Amino acid sequence: MKKNASKSAFYAQSGGVSAVINASACGVIETALRSRHIDKVYAGRHGIIGALTEDLIDCGRESAATIRGLRHTPAGAFGSARFKLKGIDQNRAEYERLIEVFRAHNIGYFFYNGGNDSMDTAQKVSQIGESLGYPITCVGVPKTVDNDLPHTDCCPGFGSVAKYVAVSTREASMDVASMAKTSTKVFVLEVMGRHAGWIAAAAGLAGRGVDETPHVILFPEVPFERQKFLERVRQCVVDFGYCVIVVSEGAAYADGKFLADAGTRDAFGHTQLGGVGPVVANMVREAHGYKFHWAVADYLQRSARHIASKVDVEQAYAVGKAAVELAVRGVNAVMPTIVRKSAKPYRWSIGHVPLIEVANKEKKLPPHYIRDDGFGITPACRRYLEPLVAGESYPPYRNGLPDYVHLKGVSVRRKLKTEFKV
Amino acid sequence: MKKNASKSAFYAQSGGVSAVINASACGVIETALRSRHIDKVYAGRHGIIGALTEDLIDCGRESAATIRGLRHTPAGAFGSARFKLKGIDQNRAEYERLIEVFRAHNIGYFFYNGGNDSMDTAQKVSQIGESLGYPITCVGVPKTVDNDLPHTDCCPGFGSVAKYVAVSTREASMDVASMAKTSTKVFVLEVMGRHAGWIAAAAGLAGRGVDETPHVILFPEVPFERQKFLERVRQCVVDFGYCVIVVSEGAAYADGKFLADAGTRDAFGHTQLGGVGPVVANMVREAHGYKFHWAVADYLQRSARHIASKVDVEQAYAVGKAAVELAVRGVNAVMPTIVRKSAKPYRWSIGHVPLIEVANKEKKLPPHYIRDDGFGITPACRRYLEPLVAGESYPPYRNGLPDYVHLKGVSVRRKLKTEFKV
Repeated sequence: MKKNASKSAFYAQSGGVSAVINASACGVIETALRSRHIDKVYAGRHGIIGALTEDLIDCGRESAATIRGLRHTPAGAFGSARFKLKGIDQNRAEYERLIEVFRAHNIGYFFYNGGNDSMDTAQKVSQIGESLGYPITCVGVPKTVDNDLPHTDCCPGFGSVAKYVAVSTREASMDVASMAKTSTKVFVLEVMGRHAGWIAAAAGLAGRGVDETPHVILFPEVPFERQKFLERVRQCVVDFGYCVIVVSEGAAYADGKFLADAGTRDAFGHTQLGGVGPVVANMVREAHGYKFHWAVADYLQRSARHIASKVDVEQAYAVGKAAVELAVRGVNAVMPTIVRKSAKPYRWSIGHVPLIEVANKEKKLPPHYIRDDGFGITPACRRYLEPLVAGESYPPYRNGLPDYVHLKGVSVRRKLKTEFKV
Repeated sequence: MKKNASKSAFYAQSGGVSAVINASACGVIETALRSRHIDKVYAGRHGIIGALTEDLIDCGRESAATIRGLRHTPAGAFGSARFKLKGIDQNRAEYERLIEVFRAHNIGYFFYNGGNDSMDTAQKVSQIGESLGYPITCVGVPKTVDNDLPHTDCCPGFGSVAKYVAVSTREASMDVASMAKTSTKVFVLEVMGRHAGWIAAAAGLAGRGVDETPHVILFPEVPFERQKFLERVRQCVVDFGYCVIVVSEGAAYADGKFLADAGTRDAFGHTQLGGVGPVVANMVREAHGYKFHWAVADYLQRSARHIASKVDVEQAYAVGKAAVELAVRGVNAVMPTIVRKSAKPYRWSIGHVPLIEVANKEKKLPPHYIRDDGFGITPACRRYLEPLVAGESYPPYRNGLPDYVHLKGVSVRRKLKTEFKV
C-alpha cells in the first residue's frame, strides 16, 4: 500500500466506445497510479458489470509502456457494456452488491467513462454514500462520439470522429468528381448520430460553401422533406455535375419516423434492417435515375484512431487526469468538462459540472449552426467545429499497421464467495 | 518548343480512380516536362474523351508545386472516364478523330493510366501507327485498386486500399470486441473487388491466425456455402464472443449468382440495389439472432489518401516516370510493371510487358493464398501482401484536413473546327 493512501480506485468504460476513450483511461490510470492518495487502481471488465461480478483487472500489473500505449489505442481496452443501473428504489440489490465488492477491495474512488446514460449510472453510484452509508467519491469521465453531453463545450471522442468524417467526405467527394462525367453522379455517406447532427455537421468541414461538397447534409434536427431534397439533388447534378450527400442515421420525417425505417423487405417479405444510406440512394435513383454509390461508415468512423484529432486525444487524456485530481480533492458527483476559452487561437481548459446536470440530457445541434436551406452548416458551426479536428496524432506503425496495445488484463483475486447475476 | 523536342505528350486517367493515380500522373508529368525529347505535356479531361473532344489541359501551365502536390492528392485530378474504344474495324471514326486531334496538337506520345479495360484502349491506340499511318508511341500506366492486372507483381492503387482495409478491419474489430459482452456480436465489412478477392484478402493482415480477426473472409474465388458460413459464425461467437466478417462485393454462390443480388425489395416491391454487407448481416441475424453492425466502405476505401501505403505511392510514381522513359526510348505498346526482386527485405524494380499481354485479362487470387477452410488467407498470402502496405505517406494538413491540390486546369486552345460526339 502506498504511504498515506487509504483507498483504492475503480475505473470502467461504458456505452459505445471511441477512438480516444482509452486515452481517457490512460489519463485516469497514470494519474491514479502516481497519486499518493490512491492505493490500488482497478478496472472493471465490461463496465459496471465488472464491479457487480467482482471481475476486476489490476492496472498496476500492466507495464508503464502498455498504459502509455492506451493513449494511441482505439476502442475499449477493458471492455465496455451497455448496462444501465436502475434507481436504488427499483433495484436495491445491485447497489448493495456494488458496496459489497467495493468494501471487499477497499474501493473509495469510482471513475465511470461514458456518455449520457453512463453519467446517470455514475450519478446513482455517487449517492450510495448518502443513501446507503458507504463512503465513495464518484467522478464521471465524459466520452461520446455523439457530442451531445450538455455543459461541456465538446465531448472527447467527437473530435476524432468529426475528423474522420470530414476527411472521408473530402476524399470521397474528389473521387465522385473524377467519375461523374461518365459514371457515378450521386454519392451518399451515412454517418452516426441517432438523435443529434453533430457528426453529420462535421462533414460540412470538407468544403467551403454551397458550391462545394457535401452538397447536401441531412440532419436529425431538420425534418426530411422528400420533394425539396430531390430537387436540391437534381439541381446539384445540373450545376456541378454530381452531388455528394451526407446523411445522419437519425434523419427523420416530420412525424418522427426515421428514414432508415423505410420498411424494406427481402425476397421472402422479411423486414430488412437497412441503413439510411441505401434508402436515400435508392430514393434518388427512383426519382432521377442517376448512377450512384453509397457508403456506411458505421464502426469504422468511431474506431479510426489512425486519423484521430490531436486536440481530441489531448482533451480525452485531460478529462481522465482531471477526474482523478477532483476525486482526491474529495469532489463527489461531478464530471470534468471542456471549457472553450478562445476560438481563434483555440484555447481550452478543464472545468466541472454536477453529474445530475448531465445525466440523461442531450445537446442537439443549435438552429444557428444549420444553414437556412437546412442542407448545410453555417460559418458559426464551422468556427465551432474547426478547432476540434485540429492536429494529427498518429499511432506508431509496425508492418504497415498501427501498433495498438493489448492489456495483459491480470484479474484481481476474488474475495467474495457470492456470485451475482446481471 | 524545347530544343530537340519534336513531339508533345498526351496523358489521361481512365476507369475507377484510386488514392495514388495522381502520383502516377505526377511521375508522368514531371518526367515529361523535364524530358528534352518531349515538347508540350497535355492531359485529357476525362480520359480518352478529352482526346476525342479536343478537351486538353496544358500541364505546363500548372505550378511545379501543384504538380508535385498530385503525389499526395487522391482521385483523378484530370477527371476519369469509363469509356472503352471499340476495335478499329467497328468504329474507325473514333480512331480517325484521335489522329486528327493528335496531329493538330503535334502529339506523338500517348500515356494512358488505368486498369484492364484501359490497357485494351491503350493497346488499340498503339496500333494506329501501323494501321492508320499516324506515328505515335503509346505506353500504358498501370492503375487498379483491384490488383488484377497480370504480369505485374502488384498494381499501383492496391497497396493503399489494402492498407485502408487492413487498418479499418483491425480498428473495427477492436470496437466489436469491446462491445460484444452486452451488445454487438457480429460485424460485417463490405469491401471492393467484383471479380478478384485481393482487397478482401488484405483484411486478413488485421490479425494473425484463426483465432484473430477477421474471423471470416468471403472471397469471390470461393463459392459461398450458406450453412458452412453460418456454422462458422456461430462457432466464432461461441469461442471468441464475437465474429468479424469481411465480405468482397463479388462474393457469389456456386452458380455464379452474387450474394448482393439477393432480390431485396422495398415496401413498394421495387428491387433494391443493396450491398452484400447488409445481405450477409441479415442472413446471420435470421439464422442466429445476434445483434450486428455492418459497414460498406465503398469509395472511402479507394480515395483514402490519408492512410496511403508509402510503397504504393512510390510505385505509382515510378510507373509514371518509367512510362515516359520507355516512350522516349521509342518503346511502343507496353506497360511498366512492378517486379518483386526480394520479399524480405522487400525490394522491387520496374520492368515492362507488351500491352497485348495485359489487356482485358484478370489475375485472381491463387488457390494457395486462400486457407483450406476458405475463410482466411495463408502465410504465403500474408508474405505477398505485407510489403505492399508498408510505410506511411501522410499528406500535409491544413485546418485539420488534408491539403489536397486542385489544378488550375487551363484548357489548350482548340485548333479544330469540328465537334465530336462521344
